[in-house]
Amino acid sequence: MQNQFLINGRHDGLTPLDRGFAYGDGVFRTLPVYRGHPHCWERHYRRLGDDCNALGIVCPSAVLLLGDIARLCGDDEDAAIKIVVTRGDGMRGYAVPPLAQPNRVVLKSALPAWPESRFSYGATLHLCQLALSFQPRLAGIKHLNRLENVLARMEWTDANIADGLLLDVDGHVIECTMSNIFIRQGHILMTPDLTQCGVAGVTRERILELAATLGFKVSICNFKLDILLGAEEVVLCNSLFGAWQVREVAGKIWPAGELAGRLRTLLKEEHAPAA
Amino acid sequence: MQNQFLINGRHDGLTPLDRGFAYGDGVFRTLPVYRGHPHCWERHYRRLGDDCNALGIVCPSAVLLLGDIARLCGDDEDAAIKIVVTRGDGMRGYAVPPLAQPNRVVLKSALPAWPESRFSYGATLHLCQLALSFQPRLAGIKHLNRLENVLARMEWTDANIADGLLLDVDGHVIECTMSNIFIRQGHILMTPDLTQCGVAGVTRERILELAATLGFKVSICNFKLDILLGAEEVVLCNSLFGAWQVREVAGKIWPAGELAGRLRTLLKEEHAPAA
Repeated sequence: MQNQFLINGRHDGLTPLDRGFAYGDGVFRTLPVYRGHPHCWERHYRRLGDDCNALGIVCPSAVLLLGDIARLCGDDEDAAIKIVVTRGDGMRGYAVPPLAQPNRVVLKSALPAWPESRFSYGATLHLCQLALSFQPRLAGIKHLNRLENVLARMEWTDANIADGLLLDVDGHVIECTMSNIFIRQGHILMTPDLTQCGVAGVTRERILELAATLGFKVSICNFKLDILLGAEEVVLCNSLFGAWQVREVAGKIWPAGELAGRLRTLLKEEHAPAA
Repeated sequence: MQNQFLINGRHDGLTPLDRGFAYGDGVFRTLPVYRGHPHCWERHYRRLGDDCNALGIVCPSAVLLLGDIARLCGDDEDAAIKIVVTRGDGMRGYAVPPLAQPNRVVLKSALPAWPESRFSYGATLHLCQLALSFQPRLAGIKHLNRLENVLARMEWTDANIADGLLLDVDGHVIECTMSNIFIRQGHILMTPDLTQCGVAGVTRERILELAATLGFKVSICNFKLDILLGAEEVVLCNSLFGAWQVREVAGKIWPAGELAGRLRTLLKEEHAPAA
């Protein structure tokens, strides 16, 4: 499948005046389309709007974005959709134009062909040396300033490594470069607090809501690597692959676990976001 | 003057696959062109190359970039030039393509029409609430992840304010949103250490080299707001305006000073970079 995209609904290019290009002044979301239907659309759109709000960007209407997706994707098509909303074009300089019109980009790609072993056997993680910095004004937001992720991803080339585990500068576990993380200890499912750094993904939000269905209590908290390494199970999640069991990180190997599979089954369904 | 640009030497647009757009995975420089001549070109190009190296991006040759500038600027033209070099186009995902071809963008704009009072009377600064985060892997680099600058610049709309003073999360003075900063105490010229955050501009580098000509010793160090407020003179600098005396910040008002004017005279000349 060729990458295809629409920029403000047209087959145009972006200019260097776009503030997403100039400053990373924008936000994005990635979601799967199954048989032409954007999975968990309401939830993704709500989070896109939240992230736009956090930066003072006007979020395009869902009608416009769904129209773009429908034009790019056939009725029976499976695909990965990336939506980018930037503050729009501006003049040189950081000052926000008083009447900035956001630019919206919708990009269709093939769904990634993950190795089957990630689902059956589990994922091996690289422990990243790059430490995430604290910026509470940007934490949680899926914004376009992603050089930390790029630098972290440059730390390995081994195709057997599924993702890289990122700690913050104080050594707390935060996330992986393209996924959020959960650890299970007994009946408690813990995921890192993302108020200082990290990206709060939609699948993380869904798992926090679904946990009770599986009989888990959830805890959003700070914990360090030793707690993760001592956990009974560790699971990664994102919107495209759902959930993977972590098999190995930093010399620790876990036996086969069932949590990721149980989560994947639940994540395949759509459920309404919590009010 | 209309903004005009070349992308890889052509009148094309960028695509959303450009990693500068997708992740801010690139670097930039801004410099003035006087009568068709890029001011302090060697120095700007060297720093562009340093910043590319720091991110593992292949820097386009000076011949290519100078050719683009010559095509955009007439022989007698004054203009502001922004050069952006990104890692190039990529597929979805943070992994760097093994054969990434950098994209180069050269954008011509009118030189900013600064109020004359900034040069004669001095600059009033806003003290920003946003605190810069520590990321030693990116500190000093003029990269495209500039959301902190954008958020800081959103803190004021008063056109009488020349720039915003940025502190780091520990309260050290670092820079302004579009300029570096120096303070003078006796015969010592101090500028913040930028190994944890901030952008190391070319004009800052030039002033550090020129200071001896004016009889100053230089010190690159950490200092907090109280030290700045107690300084005899405070000066801002960047490549487009040269240097401005700071007149007022955080309730403190300085009398007229001569440092910025003396620096501007020196900065108008080109001098060879230190080896």
